[in-house]
Amino acid sequence: MRVLGIDPGYAIVGWGVLDYTGNRFAPVAYGAILTDKDTPFEQRLAEIYTGMNEVCTKYRPQALSIEKLYYQHNQTTVIGVAEARGVILLSAAQAGVPIFEYTPMQVKQAVTGYGKAVKKQIQEMTRILLHLDAVPKPDDTADALALAIAHCHCSRSRIAGTPPR
Amino acid sequence: MRVLGIDPGYAIVGWGVLDYTGNRFAPVAYGAILTDKDTPFEQRLAEIYTGMNEVCTKYRPQALSIEKLYYQHNQTTVIGVAEARGVILLSAAQAGVPIFEYTPMQVKQAVTGYGKAVKKQIQEMTRILLHLDAVPKPDDTADALALAIAHCHCSRSRIAGTPPR
Repeated sequence: MRVLGIDPGYAIVGWGVLDYTGNRFAPVAYGAILTDKDTPFEQRLAEIYTGMNEVCTKYRPQALSIEKLYYQHNQTTVIGVAEARGVILLSAAQAGVPIFEYTPMQVKQAVTGYGKAVKKQIQEMTRILLHLDAVPKPDDTADALALAIAHCHCSRSRIAGTPPR
Repeated sequence: MRVLGIDPGYAIVGWGVLDYTGNRFAPVAYGAILTDKDTPFEQRLAEIYTGMNEVCTKYRPQALSIEKLYYQHNQTTVIGVAEARGVILLSAAQAGVPIFEYTPMQVKQAVTGYGKAVKKQIQEMTRILLHLDAVPKPDDTADALALAIAHCHCSRSRIAGTPPR
């Protein structure tokens, strides 16, 4: 199973693609779509859409694992993050990639077995599971890979993430 | 000047196109993009994107006037509305349509001359300015036309709406 994890945002969209076969993970590619704060907001959305389309076309993921967004998120950025997230969901829908949402606690539980794990623990477990020499940077990329791992673990144990709304 | 007004949402996207020439308004076309609550959310976003692309291609507006979204909006829907709004902004950006945002109070002020006007007053003034026999339905469509009128009045008096972020 090939899974694309996405940590949504409008300045940085972390992404990571991995293959999950017989209980083993293999990283395929990972990175971040970066947009400039001086670029008009709607152009940043267009850049995110183009970047997402490129990732979906190049790596052909069979599932998208994305962080669930709550009203309680950072008040000053939540609207913009949600607008970017809409564009990301659109790209996945048009590429025919099924979408699964996970809360941060579900990701922690699925990756480390402990729902209150701190960021460093999740990043280190992500590094180990993917046989990487170092934690990928920026943090958004590491978070995206953790989301992809979470989906693999959850779909294996049949606690699938909730499709959006 | 041809202006497209948009009242964003994920169940109903109200839209209205009008021409504004020499202080007179002429309605061109108006309606609503409707999505079904039983359709997966990401497919609803795809339908909104397609609908927006059709409106932009068919009517070639020179400006998009859209309601500004605040964190204080309805807590249970604001994330979904923002996700739909992201898709709407993407469509306008790809069509090269400049985007202007207005608050509800700016719309009230621009359409009726009174920032605390009630919905019925705005709808009635919209109907009169556009020489219509009845207020367009649903309300989202009437709101979209009011947004388009507001942009014409504001750009005339050089109090242009703020481009998004």
